[in-house]
Amino acid sequence: MTKPAIAIHGGAGTILRSSMTPQREQQYTDALRQALHTGYGILSHGGTALDAVEAAIKSLEDCPLFNAGKGSVYNNAGQHEMDAGIMSGKDISAGAVSLIRNVKNPIALARALMDRRGHVFLCGEGAEVFAREVGLAVEPDSYFDTPFRYEQWQEAKKTDSSFLDHNVTVSDKKFGTVGAVAIDSHGDLAAGTSTGGMTNKKYGRIGDSPIIGAGTYANNKTCAISCTGHGELFIRSVVAYDVSCLIEYKGMTLAEACHEVVMKKLVAINGEGGLIAIDHLGNIQMPFNSEGMYRAMKNPDAELIAIYK
Amino acid sequence: MTKPAIAIHGGAGTILRSSMTPQREQQYTDALRQALHTGYGILSHGGTALDAVEAAIKSLEDCPLFNAGKGSVYNNAGQHEMDAGIMSGKDISAGAVSLIRNVKNPIALARALMDRRGHVFLCGEGAEVFAREVGLAVEPDSYFDTPFRYEQWQEAKKTDSSFLDHNVTVSDKKFGTVGAVAIDSHGDLAAGTSTGGMTNKKYGRIGDSPIIGAGTYANNKTCAISCTGHGELFIRSVVAYDVSCLIEYKGMTLAEACHEVVMKKLVAINGEGGLIAIDHLGNIQMPFNSEGMYRAMKNPDAELIAIYK
Repeated sequence: MTKPAIAIHGGAGTILRSSMTPQREQQYTDALRQALHTGYGILSHGGTALDAVEAAIKSLEDCPLFNAGKGSVYNNAGQHEMDAGIMSGKDISAGAVSLIRNVKNPIALARALMDRRGHVFLCGEGAEVFAREVGLAVEPDSYFDTPFRYEQWQEAKKTDSSFLDHNVTVSDKKFGTVGAVAIDSHGDLAAGTSTGGMTNKKYGRIGDSPIIGAGTYANNKTCAISCTGHGELFIRSVVAYDVSCLIEYKGMTLAEACHEVVMKKLVAINGEGGLIAIDHLGNIQMPFNSEGMYRAMKNPDAELIAIYK
Repeated sequence: MTKPAIAIHGGAGTILRSSMTPQREQQYTDALRQALHTGYGILSHGGTALDAVEAAIKSLEDCPLFNAGKGSVYNNAGQHEMDAGIMSGKDISAGAVSLIRNVKNPIALARALMDRRGHVFLCGEGAEVFAREVGLAVEPDSYFDTPFRYEQWQEAKKTDSSFLDHNVTVSDKKFGTVGAVAIDSHGDLAAGTSTGGMTNKKYGRIGDSPIIGAGTYANNKTCAISCTGHGELFIRSVVAYDVSCLIEYKGMTLAEACHEVVMKKLVAINGEGGLIAIDHLGNIQMPFNSEGMYRAMKNPDAELIAIYK
């Protein structure tokens, strides 16, 4: 029996203690703890890594604090367009959805697609049709409307900029994404990522979150990875699969591979962000090269919830 | 000065000599030669690998024989939805577009996006808006209507199946994709892939072609790759970047890496298809595990155009 373990993130970026109120910090910490315990509870009762990852991400999607699900930012047209991806390390099966609206839990849609074992990646209205066919919860636009995100959108429109997440100045970046990785008592790995994209985004832009190999990857031979960061650079660097390959082909440990990719290769191209990773031995890494990353981990021996460096 | 070289493909699958007429075979050979010489002509006059790849793929997109651009298959709604991706090995910059309609040359749109150095991946109507903004050629739906593809769509609708490309029975599969990889006299690598997707496809399905790392990848340190095959399995296997990693991290030659991925790893999961690859030394590989692959290569010393095993 493998010792179960889970790690989650709620996005990385310019998250400074100086700009956070104690009350706000407590809200984030509570939300991370709830998602962490939801996922770990499944693992500790013999559930699968896939179920734990999906449940933890659903918890984060249902929380208005994070840019995913209910808390998703507004795009250029005042809509909420979401992406999500999930992968099983057991058989490298995967599901990903992009630019979907009204689906309450995008990660559940990615999971339903994966479970069908047919198409891997669906986009836009077609993916929403599939969501209704499989009976997933659909919410009106108003469900995703939150005052905080609306203000951010109004600010973004004033400067005609497309914010990476929900900050007032572009230099003050946050990469709004949520994700989870887990290993279950059978030794199976899983990874998932979900996002509401960029405030005021145009053009049907897709980031790294739903791209298998870039924002999300899992393989029992190596590790499970969920990323958060500057999506374009994470796509070009095939970040998640790169960590896996450094372990499988170069013999690196999880810690070495994560350091190489996040602190060296990404830093070299100004690829701001981070990732959470868990390997087939249950080791966990949560590296980031930005100011902060909402993150948490739990196994039978330890629990950690953290925001800053 | 590096010796320039280029390789192209027009899709893989159940392509049997027994089901081909001499006239049809000649048409394919002529079309491949034209695209090959268009790309190589740019390289031999000192042009860049990127320009050669784009020009060769445009030539294949403009030919009704291949499932890309003008020859794109019909989706479930009787429309032509196309995907394309391009990547430069010089700075691992990339551009990808998905589910776009009416754009004459999807590869040119991917290139225009890459040249902007902003977003990497655009999808659907937003990508078409971008195409008009940058002044790319837009064609009416009728431009993409070809009798052969229309018949295939009618056949597909009868059986309510979603064909991978343009064959009458699912056991008789073709993976309709076009692609090119090249190295120029400066030693820079580039790769590109373009497709019209699956006949009668629903749900906004995206295959591997526009996914950086899966269907398309280029890096001057290792190689340039363009894939054609069962897209879902190519996405899950991160095929293009896997070849690159086997070279960079495991020290394999291009031939060894291609064999490992196409003839072993993909075969093990019934991942039918193939790829074209060129490394930083100008070596070319064009492996496939299906019955045939429309393919061609040219360098100062050799020229090859082939269809069957």
